[in-house]
Amino acid sequence: MADETLFELLHMEIVLHVYKSMGQDDDEDQGKHIHVLENMGFRVGQGLIERLTKDSPSFKDELEVVKFLCKDLWTTLFKKQIDNLRTNHQGTFVLQDNRFLLLTQISNSKQYLEEAPKFLAYTCGLIKGALSNLGISSLVSAEVPIMPSCKFQVVISRS
Amino acid sequence: MADETLFELLHMEIVLHVYKSMGQDDDEDQGKHIHVLENMGFRVGQGLIERLTKDSPSFKDELEVVKFLCKDLWTTLFKKQIDNLRTNHQGTFVLQDNRFLLLTQISNSKQYLEEAPKFLAYTCGLIKGALSNLGISSLVSAEVPIMPSCKFQVVISRS
Repeated sequence: MADETLFELLHMEIVLHVYKSMGQDDDEDQGKHIHVLENMGFRVGQGLIERLTKDSPSFKDELEVVKFLCKDLWTTLFKKQIDNLRTNHQGTFVLQDNRFLLLTQISNSKQYLEEAPKFLAYTCGLIKGALSNLGISSLVSAEVPIMPSCKFQVVISRS
Repeated sequence: MADETLFELLHMEIVLHVYKSMGQDDDEDQGKHIHVLENMGFRVGQGLIERLTKDSPSFKDELEVVKFLCKDLWTTLFKKQIDNLRTNHQGTFVLQDNRFLLLTQISNSKQYLEEAPKFLAYTCGLIKGALSNLGISSLVSAEVPIMPSCKFQVVISRS
């Protein structure tokens, strides 16, 4: 009960602190904040996946890795699994959470929808960090089709 | 397994970020950092205890409140209980954790012992915030008798 609250509360404090400590005057600042939050999430994702996969056998392909994130990583963070996973089988994955915990506290009026990106950056970084630690480099973005659902798009970078 | 890791990793990122974003030149800065971390912890403590006690009957005295923190709050945060609780029955409580999660990553050489306060401030704030939300105002400090054990001293303020 209080377990999903812990991450939620800690996350909220991080977002508030980053925005308060760094100024928030223009678009450039906005970009900086998002970047800071993504980086913090990235490192947490790396650390978390390392411990989560410590006793797991290795994954046979990218789809299996993404499924692990949808199930195990998501449950650790949000006490639920991703509701829907889609892929084009060419390295693009869309993970949909129909009730994304970090958006449930925000009012769903249109005015607040503009605020959504700052509540998604950390988690985008987290997904990216987790994948990175499993040897997969990626671009991760998020959109909010309708509050409080959220779609994370993962595009694997081929090098 | 990975659950206690989540708080640990998030906490580490918060400490790093606060120290990086605010400069760390002199003792005054050090005081500011500690203050920021305590405040962040305070609000998380308030929010967390509110949900944890939602369905609890009210507490009959301060000792019962402190016992709840030692057991339920500590388990939510650190997946273990406080190992030892002592009180002088006059409003002072000492909570000892023999293996405090947020110190287990730090080397226990003397050099690093000086670094310990920055890893304790958040949790001091958390305890203070939790008590505050239950109508008890307090002063909370921490000391590290020997790594990685930690003693939190709670002094209830009578008004």
